[in-house]
Amino acid sequence: MKLPVSTEWLLHCATSLAQLEPGATASAAQLADYYDLPAPYLAKQLQALVRAGVLSATTGPRGGFRLARAASEITLLQIVEAVDGASTPYECREIRRQGRGALPPEECRSICVLAEKMAGAHRAWRASLADVSLADILAELSAHAPERTRSRLTGRT
Amino acid sequence: MKLPVSTEWLLHCATSLAQLEPGATASAAQLADYYDLPAPYLAKQLQALVRAGVLSATTGPRGGFRLARAASEITLLQIVEAVDGASTPYECREIRRQGRGALPPEECRSICVLAEKMAGAHRAWRASLADVSLADILAELSAHAPERTRSRLTGRT
Repeated sequence: MKLPVSTEWLLHCATSLAQLEPGATASAAQLADYYDLPAPYLAKQLQALVRAGVLSATTGPRGGFRLARAASEITLLQIVEAVDGASTPYECREIRRQGRGALPPEECRSICVLAEKMAGAHRAWRASLADVSLADILAELSAHAPERTRSRLTGRT
Repeated sequence: MKLPVSTEWLLHCATSLAQLEPGATASAAQLADYYDLPAPYLAKQLQALVRAGVLSATTGPRGGFRLARAASEITLLQIVEAVDGASTPYECREIRRQGRGALPPEECRSICVLAEKMAGAHRAWRASLADVSLADILAELSAHAPERTRSRLTGRT
């Protein structure tokens, strides 16, 4: 059970974009440079965050990416599921219905109790990530982090 | 983020073995027949449950698998982690330390706040599964389930 490596990329990129001044943007190339990541693949992943409504992409000479909403309204869950989808890691193929022990259809109208417990664990995982916003993350960074991030991410020097 | 397909197999096999009379066993072939699963691969997976201390394997003409402990002392988490391991699905490669935005080492002594939040979600997932025992699962099955399971899993007819 593994999340894509790009999950870390996008969590960090969104955290960095959350530290920009309102309206400011950073390009995929700037973000790739900032974290030493492969720019073309990162750009593709950033588009997934745009499709998920987490980022906005603007074009033009000063174009780039910025948060599509306030940092307090973007959760880690939204970012993680933009990368990996929202499906449960447990795959129930209904083996209870097959083989010598197959249950009759009338006993399979409800979800299998094992699948339900596995779904409950996934709900707990999702709830944990839905409870953390980018604003919560920023609140835990050092006081000088935003200024440094802005300077290194979008600075011309 | 996907668990192996065999996760479902082993959750169901352990649930079935939990319904046998004390001391009774079922072979990999019987379990494979019961759920219409590939016997050689299932046998290999059952051995993972033996290594994890969930099942005991006995040899001889009446040999097979049985629970290694009481059903109340075996959790879904033990079974799932016997199949898939216990590592967190989120891989932190410490990209905060690289690129133009690299943090100095003294700011990386603590775990990255993003990695910590992801670990918190994994803890919530584990806690949810650790809270459910095979005895809890049996308590939710229909009253006639154990008799039917015994008859179809190990019956000679």
